[in-house]
Amino acid sequence: MTTFADLPTPSLLVDLPRVRRNCERMLAFARESGVRLRPHVKTHKCVEIARLQHGGEIGAITVSTLAEAEHFADAGFGDILYAVPVEPGKLARVVALCRRIDLAVLVNDLATVDALADGAAQSGGGVRRPRVLLELDCGDGRTGLDPSGDELLVLARAVAEQPSLRFAGVLTHGGHSYAATDDDAVRASARQERDVVVAAAGRLRAAGLAVETVSLGSTPTMTHAGELSGVTEIRPGNYAFFDAFQVAHGSCGLDDAAATVLAAVVRCDRARRRVVLDAGAIALSKDLGPRDVDPHAGFGRVLYLDGRDSGARVDRVTQEHGEIELPAGADLDAWRVGARVRILANHSCLTAAQHTEYHVVEGGDVVATWHPARGW
Amino acid sequence: MTTFADLPTPSLLVDLPRVRRNCERMLAFARESGVRLRPHVKTHKCVEIARLQHGGEIGAITVSTLAEAEHFADAGFGDILYAVPVEPGKLARVVALCRRIDLAVLVNDLATVDALADGAAQSGGGVRRPRVLLELDCGDGRTGLDPSGDELLVLARAVAEQPSLRFAGVLTHGGHSYAATDDDAVRASARQERDVVVAAAGRLRAAGLAVETVSLGSTPTMTHAGELSGVTEIRPGNYAFFDAFQVAHGSCGLDDAAATVLAAVVRCDRARRRVVLDAGAIALSKDLGPRDVDPHAGFGRVLYLDGRDSGARVDRVTQEHGEIELPAGADLDAWRVGARVRILANHSCLTAAQHTEYHVVEGGDVVATWHPARGW
Repeated sequence: MTTFADLPTPSLLVDLPRVRRNCERMLAFARESGVRLRPHVKTHKCVEIARLQHGGEIGAITVSTLAEAEHFADAGFGDILYAVPVEPGKLARVVALCRRIDLAVLVNDLATVDALADGAAQSGGGVRRPRVLLELDCGDGRTGLDPSGDELLVLARAVAEQPSLRFAGVLTHGGHSYAATDDDAVRASARQERDVVVAAAGRLRAAGLAVETVSLGSTPTMTHAGELSGVTEIRPGNYAFFDAFQVAHGSCGLDDAAATVLAAVVRCDRARRRVVLDAGAIALSKDLGPRDVDPHAGFGRVLYLDGRDSGARVDRVTQEHGEIELPAGADLDAWRVGARVRILANHSCLTAAQHTEYHVVEGGDVVATWHPARGW
Repeated sequence: MTTFADLPTPSLLVDLPRVRRNCERMLAFARESGVRLRPHVKTHKCVEIARLQHGGEIGAITVSTLAEAEHFADAGFGDILYAVPVEPGKLARVVALCRRIDLAVLVNDLATVDALADGAAQSGGGVRRPRVLLELDCGDGRTGLDPSGDELLVLARAVAEQPSLRFAGVLTHGGHSYAATDDDAVRASARQERDVVVAAAGRLRAAGLAVETVSLGSTPTMTHAGELSGVTEIRPGNYAFFDAFQVAHGSCGLDDAAATVLAAVVRCDRARRRVVLDAGAIALSKDLGPRDVDPHAGFGRVLYLDGRDSGARVDRVTQEHGEIELPAGADLDAWRVGARVRILANHSCLTAAQHTEYHVVEGGDVVATWHPARGW
């Protein structure tokens, strides 16, 4: 069996016991809360991990690209939410997916409602009507509708009137929780996420619309959530791996972080106490991570092979170089050219997306190689 | 023939006439300067573009990963410099490449010199001796040796004494030119890059060592270079595509930028005058680009399909979302859901690395699809 220290560098390592434990915890939280877990698989894009998120079974998932939807449909996943708003250029692929699976999409303008309805209607038999959700802004200010505006009602009615569509309900994403710098602020984001989507569901029901799905979630809000009455579904994703951001923001402990980049020292400048690794901007991503709570976060934490924190941070990256300042008292021989370390990068979703293979490890052994979806 | 506006989004577009022109200009500069052009192919990792960089022929190249070296060797490129310092864990692949091509590597410690020499010696016949270059720090402070220190002479002698290695010379990279904020400062970086490497070659020759290669180069320094006496080889790479950084820093004009990301509008919030595109952190990268000279650079310039600058910038990215503030006076109908735009991202090396296919365009037509090397 391969020992992970013998893998080529840089390589993405996935710690299987940690992923399994992270998945079990979130599944237990969903069960205790009485909500469906529809994990966002954009973090890993990997069939094997999506199954772990459902206790080993096929289950409902959320995706960020149609390439992910097609990849997971190929693997037997039959209940998929595409959580980036759909636009007319993607309707042919959306309708093709509706021949294979139960697909839910987000729409935020009337012209696209009409185009989607026409596409679903004209494609003939064998198409399951797409489920349509309306996305609400609960503080992130990205693609959600104003939860108190008229547009929500207008769009919901327009969807509900289309015989080729199914109006399914409402969805929000507390992305603004990523800007919260203490636990109280994250908990406030979580309350706001829940309150906004539950209130919007109430508005729609009061207007006579059936709201089957009330969906929310992010990893910070779901690790800081209170009770979820009125919610039917949660969609965290990052928790499968966590990362340096989530550790710094208190969503998890360092021992929960499950994805690291194995790297090799390619230069040890003993005089300047600077070390350069063969993992840079491509292998790690240039996400700035938890700088708001840790100004010295750099581009990731440097761990020893056994997972202990070396205290060093990757403080500069270029395409294939990651640079670190050695911590005071570091044994220079442990950082000689050829030495291996692991980097816990800032944002696992982006770091994982840079790798076409995941090396799955248990202890020091590589027990599997998994292949995530790529592209769009 | 496909019109590029009909491609799926996000997609990477490569403007063939611009790439060709960029390549011809740099080749002409190298010829006029009397130096060999060994372009760094890390920007595109694409065989077809490397050929354009040599006027349609196979030629000498520089790579940033062994995966690139293997990919280009498969395509017939026989003279390759691997320009990240080699470390013992990569020696088996390095020696395997030496059975196929003329490979040059960088080494910066004695133990790796010995290990490389042993690997090359023990692998039996059919191995071309690896060429070894010593990298010098000319201001970037990354992996180069101190050009005035003893280590340079010690390492050069150690390499030259190994019968299984060829000591080839010295190399530097004026990476600090990326921090220069005006033309004079870039020109000063270019002079420093040349002076440092030429002086180091002189030190080695004075010590009795044969120095065949005196190599330098970056796109900023090569577009701002003076005369290059004493230099044998230049290694710019980004110039094939250029990008928003190079435009802002004066290495090229907006009309030279050859790689853009085609994206679709997925949300147009008319009240807030905010638009969201389906190209985010993965499709663009999170490189901060030319913020030092343009605080509003964001993550890229938003162009209309015909290449004109819309004035908008991508001011926030999440995994699959790119957000923009509409410029004053923008026609909202031009930004409706489904509209297509192009993004000139900050750093083309990182943006291109996110895409597994390049859609090659001439005017509005897609004339080819090229497949770059990926991974390590």
